[in-house]
Amino acid sequence: MKGLTERQIVGVLKHRFDSKPELPLGFEDDVAAFPISGHRLVVLKTDMLVGRTDAPPGMTLEQAARKAVVATVSDFAAKGVRPEGLLISLGLAPPVSLSTVNRIASGLLNAAREYDCRIIGGDTSETDDLVIDCIGFGFAETGMILRRDGAKPGDVVAVTGDFGRTAAGLRILLGKKKPWPRRFSRLTASVLHPTAKLETGLTLAQTGFVNSSIDSSDGLARSLHEIARLSQVDIVLESIPVAPDVRVFAGEQGLVAEELALFGGEEYELVLTMKKDRFTSVRRKVPSLRRIGDVKKGSGDVIARFGGTTRKVESRGYEHLA
Amino acid sequence: MKGLTERQIVGVLKHRFDSKPELPLGFEDDVAAFPISGHRLVVLKTDMLVGRTDAPPGMTLEQAARKAVVATVSDFAAKGVRPEGLLISLGLAPPVSLSTVNRIASGLLNAAREYDCRIIGGDTSETDDLVIDCIGFGFAETGMILRRDGAKPGDVVAVTGDFGRTAAGLRILLGKKKPWPRRFSRLTASVLHPTAKLETGLTLAQTGFVNSSIDSSDGLARSLHEIARLSQVDIVLESIPVAPDVRVFAGEQGLVAEELALFGGEEYELVLTMKKDRFTSVRRKVPSLRRIGDVKKGSGDVIARFGGTTRKVESRGYEHLA
Repeated sequence: MKGLTERQIVGVLKHRFDSKPELPLGFEDDVAAFPISGHRLVVLKTDMLVGRTDAPPGMTLEQAARKAVVATVSDFAAKGVRPEGLLISLGLAPPVSLSTVNRIASGLLNAAREYDCRIIGGDTSETDDLVIDCIGFGFAETGMILRRDGAKPGDVVAVTGDFGRTAAGLRILLGKKKPWPRRFSRLTASVLHPTAKLETGLTLAQTGFVNSSIDSSDGLARSLHEIARLSQVDIVLESIPVAPDVRVFAGEQGLVAEELALFGGEEYELVLTMKKDRFTSVRRKVPSLRRIGDVKKGSGDVIARFGGTTRKVESRGYEHLA
Repeated sequence: MKGLTERQIVGVLKHRFDSKPELPLGFEDDVAAFPISGHRLVVLKTDMLVGRTDAPPGMTLEQAARKAVVATVSDFAAKGVRPEGLLISLGLAPPVSLSTVNRIASGLLNAAREYDCRIIGGDTSETDDLVIDCIGFGFAETGMILRRDGAKPGDVVAVTGDFGRTAAGLRILLGKKKPWPRRFSRLTASVLHPTAKLETGLTLAQTGFVNSSIDSSDGLARSLHEIARLSQVDIVLESIPVAPDVRVFAGEQGLVAEELALFGGEEYELVLTMKKDRFTSVRRKVPSLRRIGDVKKGSGDVIARFGGTTRKVESRGYEHLA
């Protein structure tokens, strides 16, 4: 029997857990939120890193621990909310050495310092494989969180950087050839030492012009589909933001660079939509911002329209349990 | 090489994560807390249940999921803080069936309803074994949280119920004899269907007379040691609160009932200290309260003094990775 996919599982849980009164953010958004008082929310996110599936060959314990924090912080970045602190639930396979604990602690601490948030608690358990559940919390004013479901026809679609490096980097790390040419070091680094676009996300939220936002940890295509589906609009892409070194790598390897950019994952850029007439002024504050398409009336499709052709972009990407 | 114990790991992490400014609660308390505003705190707890170590034979998926919630709620109970909501980080081993997801969802939902808190989000990952990280959050006024480190010489030591059932119940579930006599069903039920003393904990906090409190999930002896160590006092026990059916079970099995009561674990009672002259009035509000000893000046020892003998109570109990 074929098992459920991660998305199917989330679908079942969402259906079972949904209840009234309505929460400030839906189950399918990047973070959860809950009212503290009339105008203030506590914002929470949990993201579980598992050694076998989330830490590829070549990733050190420090890097795995740091990545667990980056994944959680990235969701806050996409919502424009500063994470104030972290709790870490750690599952370790015995026997656990002092060096293992210290390396994990270093990775967590370095990441926490990078994003100026503090580790305030946690739990430790015995597991068969490394498990790092990183829980972030922060605070936001009601109505100030960037949502997945706010895209409007007439918006432009923008991203905060290039795509495809993690898909390419993962292929390098999983491949047999060693050492890899130095010119591809940014590709492997994107996997081993990812970065959350926290300051960018906070700046974007402060402009007040962003209508929807998501982090691209499930891949660019999936992220666009999530915005389109939850906002009930179509997204029409005018270009795929392929990183230049990904184009070189794809050429050498006989791969399609656009595929790497669309269907990768664990790439912690932000994907957003905003009013068309605000794009230029917002880009003055966020120079990395790049327009890749438009939001149209529709029912959740993502369409690539360039080079004289039009085709639907599939909703697939990085997924566990598939 | 022998690995580190769970307590040693927590010790290393605490040392590494400790930083200024001081947090409202120490790393070694049941929950973590962080200021929202001048007088209000957000209270957070994460507790990871792992199938292999935390779900004994005979425990259904519903029961395991429910237990994950109970463990987290129990820590809130010990602090006198109402948990408002939960996030669930779920690790599942593929292939995952719809029935598995539904059974876990039912266990989580039933427990959430029992304690009137809401599941507002979570994450799903692929693991080798069932992992349920249950994250609870709530709010408290500064200074109103019952702490582990507040015991004072002159306090009485009290518990909210009898002990030893989980240690006995676990022996029954791990044993070969089946079916077990019905008169021991409360022992197995204490393992399979535990209860967090949430209303009791909230009532105790509201009295304003409790100086220290901890939940007994690591066992009675360990819990007393934690209060004694963190409060820098000695605890002198006048009696061990052994459950009557544990005494019967121990007699039949040739076990020492007091050992089962002291050195078990995952027994979600509350262990607390309060001013001696308030005990009678507090017990009017919490009839299950039972005095078991006194707090004396000292440096963290737990001493049993009854039946004409005095002996130190070891600091051992339920521990992973040991």
